[in-house]
Amino acid sequence: MEPTSPPPLRLVDAQRVLDAQPFSRLVGATLTAFGDGRAELRIPLDERHHQQDGVVHGGVISYAADNVLTFAAGAAVGPQVWTAGFSIEFVARVSGTALVARGEVVRAGARLVTVRAELFDVDGDGERRCAIAQGTVARR
Amino acid sequence: MEPTSPPPLRLVDAQRVLDAQPFSRLVGATLTAFGDGRAELRIPLDERHHQQDGVVHGGVISYAADNVLTFAAGAAVGPQVWTAGFSIEFVARVSGTALVARGEVVRAGARLVTVRAELFDVDGDGERRCAIAQGTVARR
Amino acid sequence: MEPTSPPPLRLVDAQRVLDAQPFSRLVGATLTAFGDGRAELRIPLDERHHQQDGVVHGGVISYAADNVLTFAAGAAVGPQVWTAGFSIEFVARVSGTALVARGEVVRAGARLVTVRAELFDVDGDGERRCAIAQGTVARR
Amino acid sequence: MEPTSPPPLRLVDAQRVLDAQPFSRLVGATLTAFGDGRAELRIPLDERHHQQDGVVHGGVISYAADNVLTFAAGAAVGPQVWTAGFSIEFVARVSGTALVARGEVVRAGARLVTVRAELFDVDGDGERRCAIAQGTVARR
Repeated sequence: MEPTSPPPLRLVDAQRVLDAQPFSRLVGATLTAFGDGRAELRIPLDERHHQQDGVVHGGVISYAADNVLTFAAGAAVGPQVWTAGFSIEFVARVSGTALVARGEVVRAGARLVTVRAELFDVDGDGERRCAIAQGTVARR
Repeated sequence: MEPTSPPPLRLVDAQRVLDAQPFSRLVGATLTAFGDGRAELRIPLDERHHQQDGVVHGGVISYAADNVLTFAAGAAVGPQVWTAGFSIEFVARVSGTALVARGEVVRAGARLVTVRAELFDVDGDGERRCAIAQGTVARR
Repeated sequence: MEPTSPPPLRLVDAQRVLDAQPFSRLVGATLTAFGDGRAELRIPLDERHHQQDGVVHGGVISYAADNVLTFAAGAAVGPQVWTAGFSIEFVARVSGTALVARGEVVRAGARLVTVRAELFDVDGDGERRCAIAQGTVARR
Repeated sequence: MEPTSPPPLRLVDAQRVLDAQPFSRLVGATLTAFGDGRAELRIPLDERHHQQDGVVHGGVISYAADNVLTFAAGAAVGPQVWTAGFSIEFVARVSGTALVARGEVVRAGARLVTVRAELFDVDGDGERRCAIAQGTVARR
């Protein structure tokens, strides 16, 4: 995240950053919430997101985790951030109509921001948690 | 990874699995080595892989880490595997002509396979390490 | 965790397991809650837990994370478990009178249990979160 | 690590830091190599390091990983460092006469140092890898 506008970013600003990411457009991600150290990313799912057996590829979930951690940090400290690393645990296969990732800042330090996220497989019956993630985001 | 052929998979079989993943085709990944608990994935890079500032999106690198860990495990124990979780550390921004991910099995147990990977930004001057990853892959 | 009693373990049984761990006795850990996929570990802090600058050593916090993740899994699926791996993020230095670690199961599968934890620095003013962790525990 | 001497630390200086950590003395760790972004920690093993079943507690291995990552970073950039987070994968139970942890810097940036480590169970027959770790260390 490195737009030119100063913090705090509003949702509309953060959406503009996301829309300026060609890879996020390729994946089809949208930002559905942003602010106060929280961000929510939504990916409507179709066949392009699949692995060989018709369920969503772990790489899509990893992308969503990486990006929502970064945006949640940006929602706390502004856009000049980059993700130093994260870990993810997959807890269920994803085969719904959308993937939703929610990130929240655990602590925003002067130089590092610790963030965690939960990811959900969404279908007509509601949401089912499919992964958890946590990581370190650095301020530039 | 869940093709129908029995282990050991050959490179050509593993490539077929990768090619059967719509998301891997979307990203443009190819499998360039496979066997003996090792796998190498290569992604020729273009504008679609970028984030908003012209460098490769962390989600692309995360996808490559996730997938190469899974394939490396598959190269040790056969295709009936799924990745339970992994962690990744980003060490350099990627702006080259290809991303190369190399995974290797650290230990293949009866039920779990521990795997690690290194990822490289490739351009005309050679390779530069851009991320490291490690994780746990489960046998079905 | 590998006592001989069958699941579900009660707090008193789980405490017996902890007390049978010489390293946990060396650290001075006690189990203060256990059941329904949750566990709480408490370490009264003194000089032995310090690093060179008078704050609690990261290794103490890492021990607590590792152990509470394992016990939380045991509280869901019984004592025949071992921790395959975990990640931890440190968010504050610890200098209080006790370290409290709370673990909870995110998902208990047939073979793997995903668990996460929060750790707190406790003093007269209350609790302050000092670390978060998540990991994979395997059933034997 | 926060001694008063300036970088580069020599082995003798780093040993002094380790010896000034009460928790490291409690565990019985010694520093057997240090320099050029590498560090080696050795823990002679006895009953105090065990869990309930006579093998070494995962918390001992976690302590060693945490500490060797920090010292390896210190061997690259000096003593003013703290570990922001790490992940560890356990690959074998430890029941030998010593635990050896070897850490090495993957990249030392201006503010963050990425480090990885391998840990070994040592007995009369040699070394057997028992865990791998990687993490992010921050410069103060």
